[in-house]
Amino acid sequence: MSDFLLLLDLGGTFVFGLSGAVAGVKHKLDIFGVIVLSFVAANTGGIVRDLLIGAIPPATVSDWRYIVAGLLPGLITFYGYRFIKRLNDPVLVFDAAGLALFAVTGSLKALEYSINPLAAVFLGVLTGVGGGVTRDILVREIPAVLRTDIYAVAALAGSTVVVIGCMLGFAQIASILGAILCFVIRILAIRGHWKLPTAPHA
Amino acid sequence: MSDFLLLLDLGGTFVFGLSGAVAGVKHKLDIFGVIVLSFVAANTGGIVRDLLIGAIPPATVSDWRYIVAGLLPGLITFYGYRFIKRLNDPVLVFDAAGLALFAVTGSLKALEYSINPLAAVFLGVLTGVGGGVTRDILVREIPAVLRTDIYAVAALAGSTVVVIGCMLGFAQIASILGAILCFVIRILAIRGHWKLPTAPHA
Amino acid sequence: MSDFLLLLDLGGTFVFGLSGAVAGVKHKLDIFGVIVLSFVAANTGGIVRDLLIGAIPPATVSDWRYIVAGLLPGLITFYGYRFIKRLNDPVLVFDAAGLALFAVTGSLKALEYSINPLAAVFLGVLTGVGGGVTRDILVREIPAVLRTDIYAVAALAGSTVVVIGCMLGFAQIASILGAILCFVIRILAIRGHWKLPTAPHA
Repeated sequence: MSDFLLLLDLGGTFVFGLSGAVAGVKHKLDIFGVIVLSFVAANTGGIVRDLLIGAIPPATVSDWRYIVAGLLPGLITFYGYRFIKRLNDPVLVFDAAGLALFAVTGSLKALEYSINPLAAVFLGVLTGVGGGVTRDILVREIPAVLRTDIYAVAALAGSTVVVIGCMLGFAQIASILGAILCFVIRILAIRGHWKLPTAPHA
Repeated sequence: MSDFLLLLDLGGTFVFGLSGAVAGVKHKLDIFGVIVLSFVAANTGGIVRDLLIGAIPPATVSDWRYIVAGLLPGLITFYGYRFIKRLNDPVLVFDAAGLALFAVTGSLKALEYSINPLAAVFLGVLTGVGGGVTRDILVREIPAVLRTDIYAVAALAGSTVVVIGCMLGFAQIASILGAILCFVIRILAIRGHWKLPTAPHA
Repeated sequence: MSDFLLLLDLGGTFVFGLSGAVAGVKHKLDIFGVIVLSFVAANTGGIVRDLLIGAIPPATVSDWRYIVAGLLPGLITFYGYRFIKRLNDPVLVFDAAGLALFAVTGSLKALEYSINPLAAVFLGVLTGVGGGVTRDILVREIPAVLRTDIYAVAALAGSTVVVIGCMLGFAQIASILGAILCFVIRILAIRGHWKLPTAPHA
């Protein structure tokens, strides 16, 4: 189980790092700014999750692979930007993949630390959105999670599947399903410009 | 004592959630954005306080009632906004109530965890201003605590009353007095446009 | 060793506080806003470092001298601004000094807590840049660490010297050298408008 969690978590770290690095290049940051933004987007969600569940020091600090997985996307993106920009809206795609993987690992790790199921769902959402929020605040954009696309809803769907699946004894299958569900909802919401209602009488 | 603290703390969580949710509706966020902002404004101050005093996992994670108290204001505000907007400047009123309750619970809980009195005052202020700062950063406003009204001063007055009262053995009375004092100072400061001086020669 | 670390850390806290306070006066904050910004710039880096290495409660909470070292620069700057503004660009100079001292203490304290060397370098950089990032976000500027001067690179150089020096058994000399190296790189980068490249094909 723990190897599976580690793999998903490093994967989420890496793709969130890519989303941060691409945002950095778009904002014309220098190479170190790109690497910093890569690292921050990659690791903030996981660090906050680990502090909240009491996994201290957090994985980022205790396991050097998280540091590498946060720095590498910065280097790759900086020198390989001409390949990456061929992707259609790479920030959004990497961000959706990171959201999906972290929504899953946030819930899984919370359950491993005996956190109650409702809080485990919440921690999945928080871990998923944490990196993107920090990335967006640092480049002074309103965080995606608050903008009018379906974002936290996708993470919530993924986390809920994971927590229910774990309670029924199907942790691994539920994790894969939850990640796919979150990613698909998020991408469809972007492509289809799905919107949730805003408040009447505002 | 602990039941009393829990009640004040959940109350502070709820009213700060209202302040976040109203800010979200005003910024025309969708329903999930409103709920996220409600949750963040409601729980950030308490989470930071709990991390700093070593109450890990924080109450938000270990007690499901905090999650509900953070989500509910978002739903209530989203669907009942036409009632809430009749209040005169609802963000400010809810924010002042949350500031008062959290300034008190921040100091009380710090003292329960054997933090020294000066740091307990500081933790009261931090818990009080934490939710509002995060709310304002997320919607890209300069945080109220830095703007030219009396804000942190009100929290400081409330926290100081609580800490002195606890040292003299009157925790509960001091908590109620501290909360009222903070709320009254904050509201009077808003109504009367009280301002502190800015630096000469700036 | 620990007295030496404490001295550097309180020094870093104080000068980062000055950088925050000067930024506050420049943004025409009232006296309490200036003190809050002083406190936040002074203590955020250290608090985050302590949470990440498991030094809980953090020094800011457990040792009242950190609170004083965070508040005092606000008072000094507010009432003595006409002296401070004679300095050539005081925010940048104090910020560079804080960056240098915290890059060193971040790495030193991480090593004391048995964190691995790579993470100790990372914690030095994080402690160094943390206060400035928070200061800049609060007054709504893009954080210095992301802008086009050499900033995190300077902290990285300082931290690396400290970690290598400690592994070779020369903690104190390496700390002084690391701090000087970081400060000099940062000041030269400002004076000379050194820039790192931005990504090609962006």
